[in-house]
Amino acid sequence: MSKITTPTVTTGPLPASRKVYLSGTAHPAIRVPLREIAVHPTAGEPPVTVYDCSGPYTDANATIDIAKGLPRHRTGWALASGDVEEYDGRSVRPEDNGNLPAEKLTPAFPVVNRPLRARAGKAVTQLAYARAGIVTPEMEFVAIRENLGREALKTALERDGEPFEAEIPDFITAEWVREEVASGRAIIPANINHPELEPMAIGRNFLTKINANIGNSAVTSSMAEEVEKMVWAIRWGADTVMDLSTGRNIHNIRDWIIRNAPVPIGTVPIYQALEKVDGIAENLTWEVYRDTLIEQAEQGVDYFTIHAGVRLRHIPLTVDRVTGIVSRGGSIMAKWCLHHHRESFLYEHFDEICDICRIYDVSFSLGDGLRPGSIADANDRAQFAELETLGELTKIARAKDCQVMIEGPGHVPMHKIKVNVTKQQQLCGDAPFYTLGPLVTDIAPGYDQITSGIGAAMIGWFGTAMLCYVTPKEHLGLPDRDDVKVGVITYKIAAHAADLAKGHPAAQLRDDALSRARFEFRWEDQFNLSLDPETAQLYHDETLPKEAHKTAHFCSMCGPKFCSMKISHDIRAEAQKEGMAAMAEKYRAGGDLYMTPEEIAAKAEPAE
Amino acid sequence: MSKITTPTVTTGPLPASRKVYLSGTAHPAIRVPLREIAVHPTAGEPPVTVYDCSGPYTDANATIDIAKGLPRHRTGWALASGDVEEYDGRSVRPEDNGNLPAEKLTPAFPVVNRPLRARAGKAVTQLAYARAGIVTPEMEFVAIRENLGREALKTALERDGEPFEAEIPDFITAEWVREEVASGRAIIPANINHPELEPMAIGRNFLTKINANIGNSAVTSSMAEEVEKMVWAIRWGADTVMDLSTGRNIHNIRDWIIRNAPVPIGTVPIYQALEKVDGIAENLTWEVYRDTLIEQAEQGVDYFTIHAGVRLRHIPLTVDRVTGIVSRGGSIMAKWCLHHHRESFLYEHFDEICDICRIYDVSFSLGDGLRPGSIADANDRAQFAELETLGELTKIARAKDCQVMIEGPGHVPMHKIKVNVTKQQQLCGDAPFYTLGPLVTDIAPGYDQITSGIGAAMIGWFGTAMLCYVTPKEHLGLPDRDDVKVGVITYKIAAHAADLAKGHPAAQLRDDALSRARFEFRWEDQFNLSLDPETAQLYHDETLPKEAHKTAHFCSMCGPKFCSMKISHDIRAEAQKEGMAAMAEKYRAGGDLYMTPEEIAAKAEPAE
Repeated sequence: MSKITTPTVTTGPLPASRKVYLSGTAHPAIRVPLREIAVHPTAGEPPVTVYDCSGPYTDANATIDIAKGLPRHRTGWALASGDVEEYDGRSVRPEDNGNLPAEKLTPAFPVVNRPLRARAGKAVTQLAYARAGIVTPEMEFVAIRENLGREALKTALERDGEPFEAEIPDFITAEWVREEVASGRAIIPANINHPELEPMAIGRNFLTKINANIGNSAVTSSMAEEVEKMVWAIRWGADTVMDLSTGRNIHNIRDWIIRNAPVPIGTVPIYQALEKVDGIAENLTWEVYRDTLIEQAEQGVDYFTIHAGVRLRHIPLTVDRVTGIVSRGGSIMAKWCLHHHRESFLYEHFDEICDICRIYDVSFSLGDGLRPGSIADANDRAQFAELETLGELTKIARAKDCQVMIEGPGHVPMHKIKVNVTKQQQLCGDAPFYTLGPLVTDIAPGYDQITSGIGAAMIGWFGTAMLCYVTPKEHLGLPDRDDVKVGVITYKIAAHAADLAKGHPAAQLRDDALSRARFEFRWEDQFNLSLDPETAQLYHDETLPKEAHKTAHFCSMCGPKFCSMKISHDIRAEAQKEGMAAMAEKYRAGGDLYMTPEEIAAKAEPAE
Repeated sequence: MSKITTPTVTTGPLPASRKVYLSGTAHPAIRVPLREIAVHPTAGEPPVTVYDCSGPYTDANATIDIAKGLPRHRTGWALASGDVEEYDGRSVRPEDNGNLPAEKLTPAFPVVNRPLRARAGKAVTQLAYARAGIVTPEMEFVAIRENLGREALKTALERDGEPFEAEIPDFITAEWVREEVASGRAIIPANINHPELEPMAIGRNFLTKINANIGNSAVTSSMAEEVEKMVWAIRWGADTVMDLSTGRNIHNIRDWIIRNAPVPIGTVPIYQALEKVDGIAENLTWEVYRDTLIEQAEQGVDYFTIHAGVRLRHIPLTVDRVTGIVSRGGSIMAKWCLHHHRESFLYEHFDEICDICRIYDVSFSLGDGLRPGSIADANDRAQFAELETLGELTKIARAKDCQVMIEGPGHVPMHKIKVNVTKQQQLCGDAPFYTLGPLVTDIAPGYDQITSGIGAAMIGWFGTAMLCYVTPKEHLGLPDRDDVKVGVITYKIAAHAADLAKGHPAAQLRDDALSRARFEFRWEDQFNLSLDPETAQLYHDETLPKEAHKTAHFCSMCGPKFCSMKISHDIRAEAQKEGMAAMAEKYRAGGDLYMTPEEIAAKAEPAE
């Protein structure tokens, strides 16, 4: 085995930011992270509190040691329930890492823990607890996170949005979270073997979440790069991360990732199963797949993407498509089905998959193997035939207390987006929807974070609970660290725009704080309140780098004479000098040249 | 005067592209440019024809000499009408260039032409001709451009979109263009003094257009940079360009730009007027402004942004806004009005402005001086009060045969976007709408091409005719050449996504051609058909640079074993080997395990 070189990751708070922890009441030991962004004292404003998924890496007081992993703070919660037991897990086998010779093997994660599973007859999923009327520590954790500390503000918030089918309360309680999970409208992906997790919820009545994809391929990348990608992705706002590795060392790389991940980790188990049969899809078997599920569940994977909706009968529906089947997992299963002339083993063994997931609380992400990969294929029969099957499987999974979310497209022109949400809600019992974009046009490889960011913002507004990011490298190659950041920022924009449009009660606080900073020329506050303070400052400083420029009442766009905000301040000063009322008096004699706001309001068309 | 250093600009076709010219029938002398993108012979497909606003710069056969300007091909058209006369124009004065000493002056453009204007009693605007039932060369030029050479394809095109109030014909005739202009639903911005122009139309029933802003500020940039920015912007797809210069040398810089611009050039005359009064808004007068209009009209500016809707009575409505007045022109006029306690001189002298515009055919872009500059201010009373005034002014301008488009927001959350279009159509007699974004959230300076690209795609779908771009430098500084490109590509994405969603009959052809290339691993075709072939190839080559990789059936995202498109091809080969019908036969005995597409169609829910 090669010598362990502990990967370095990016640590430290973002500018003007500090991490605060709020405690629970029902569960006093929980510590819920939020981020406070301070503004300049002259503003006379409190810090702005924002949701924070970046984990201890941005906590100035935390000590990070990647070879030790994050604190396993949830272990006590699971054990306290009395519903779980430790046991001797499955041993790691050479095929788990692609049968590499020792000198090419990624080192195993240095700390080994015995896995937990449900005791016989016990139900340990968040769904089971929710149905039983129990508010778990995870549920309370989620409630505190989602409130963003706004309890103090709740009387001041006006609601203004178009939420469609979403129903977002002014103020979130742990009991309400329990109801959302019990109904299946939300999931809390939280494998009992991932005790490093800071729990979060995915559902249309919660803040819109985003996922970042990482993982190596046979062509490129390594464990060190992938661990840093995970830390980097969550630093910028990824709420979950999927490890989509398809190369070597899949097991060991995943260990290093999960042990250091404060966010839910998702995988697509069929990838590793395919590696175990040397990449020959026809050689996949249920047994290999089942073993892979257990292997990954014991490691702590929080959700599995499973393409059980790609049934044999659906495959002919893809034959005339422009881009065929664009899902890796979907194409692998389709190949297997056709070769064997048999129904998908994922579909046939779905009950058994549920039996595995329920004893660890691994959530389902029912895969959209037949999603459209081009505008021409959008909303076609293949896509919706699979969605019907996913609806059927959702019922089966829930009957076994398994949490379920549904994956979605893809490439969809704007006018066809909304019906995707409507159909998914109807067919899949309002399970959370988790889409990839969608891309609203095919013509811009190199910019697909933008083509998909447009569709993602819209589909998030319509009720999609989580948006899977797309980077500039989509269709062209494996994303690197820079691509990961651009993808994450783009999807934070889409998710936040969706929250604003839905009328989420806390969303606009950040826009308003930043706009006030902008208007008052508090340049550093404007940067610090933005999604990417470093880039905002870098762009500003390209043309105005001096310290004095940070309080200048202009930038290089317009210069000192033409800055509209500067002139707006002049206008307000002028107006105050005169007094608006005095001006009105002056001109009332001369007719309606100048009216007061009240008079204008009485005459004018009401604002929408 | 400093020595003339002719600026260098970017020339040469885009990859695999050649420029073709189509002739007119009613006007045989016109030469309408289109771009053909060739694909690999193995595809067995014709070249893809796309709209081309990049001018002679991308014509391999053209000789470019910036100091001579582009061919003045429209001069004959104007003179042939008999409605115009040459005359001795206004002389350039030192204040036109900010009273700079000779050694700091940008050199005057080397070629001087006498301007044209309408003969007494003659109407020379496209609107006047359209109303008189005359199909001008400009109208036919536009019709040929907008058809994209699709006459041959017209029987093959299915219509699939949600156009809202737009009505896009399958095939565009010059007579139909005339009707659109006569109705006011479209404009053809084409100053008779801009004979280098390749005419284009702006209207909701035409392809969605985009504008790029260039221009110096007091802080930075120069004539050479601005001319290259213009050429660079149109290379990537900008349909019009606005010169928003606010620094020195405004007159001379504009000359160099217009003489070399194949696209309409817009300006905001109040900027230069303000420079003439040394930046002191209170010292503006109608006379200085009037003189500036004539100066710019004689140079050939195709459209003027005029903030005549910022009336004295509207200003109090902005006092409680979060970001006040964010329009340069709007804030300048507001300052003037308040200081003098008088109605806007633009509003009061609007008739006279029309009289100037009509004798040169300068189109109005009625400015949104009170657009919202933050989410908090979106759709407020100030914004819509101004829009009502713009509606009133539209009627006055059209009564004088002036072409009019209406500017729009701004910062608007997604749920408030559509009502902007509805109100504008109702209040402004369906004049073309020309919006800046809108940005759907304030929280991402550094990424405002994305925050606004989302809103732009949506508002374009709803019927906005032209989208004004935003670059990554928005709110932070003056954009450079790289920013210009990113802004243009982003807005081409938004405009094309809007065309797709509206069901424009030719839009999807490009998406389909690119997706076929992608599916068939014709990598270079995929790059060449995209909006930015160089970037697409660069990103691909970061991880797979070798020539052999350009025909590889995978990329570094998934590698050879996991490429879903590769596997899709395997699936199709397998299916053909067996024959789908044979497979169906095989299993029919065993029940419905495997059904034919027809059987599935009969059972399944119809695709939307």
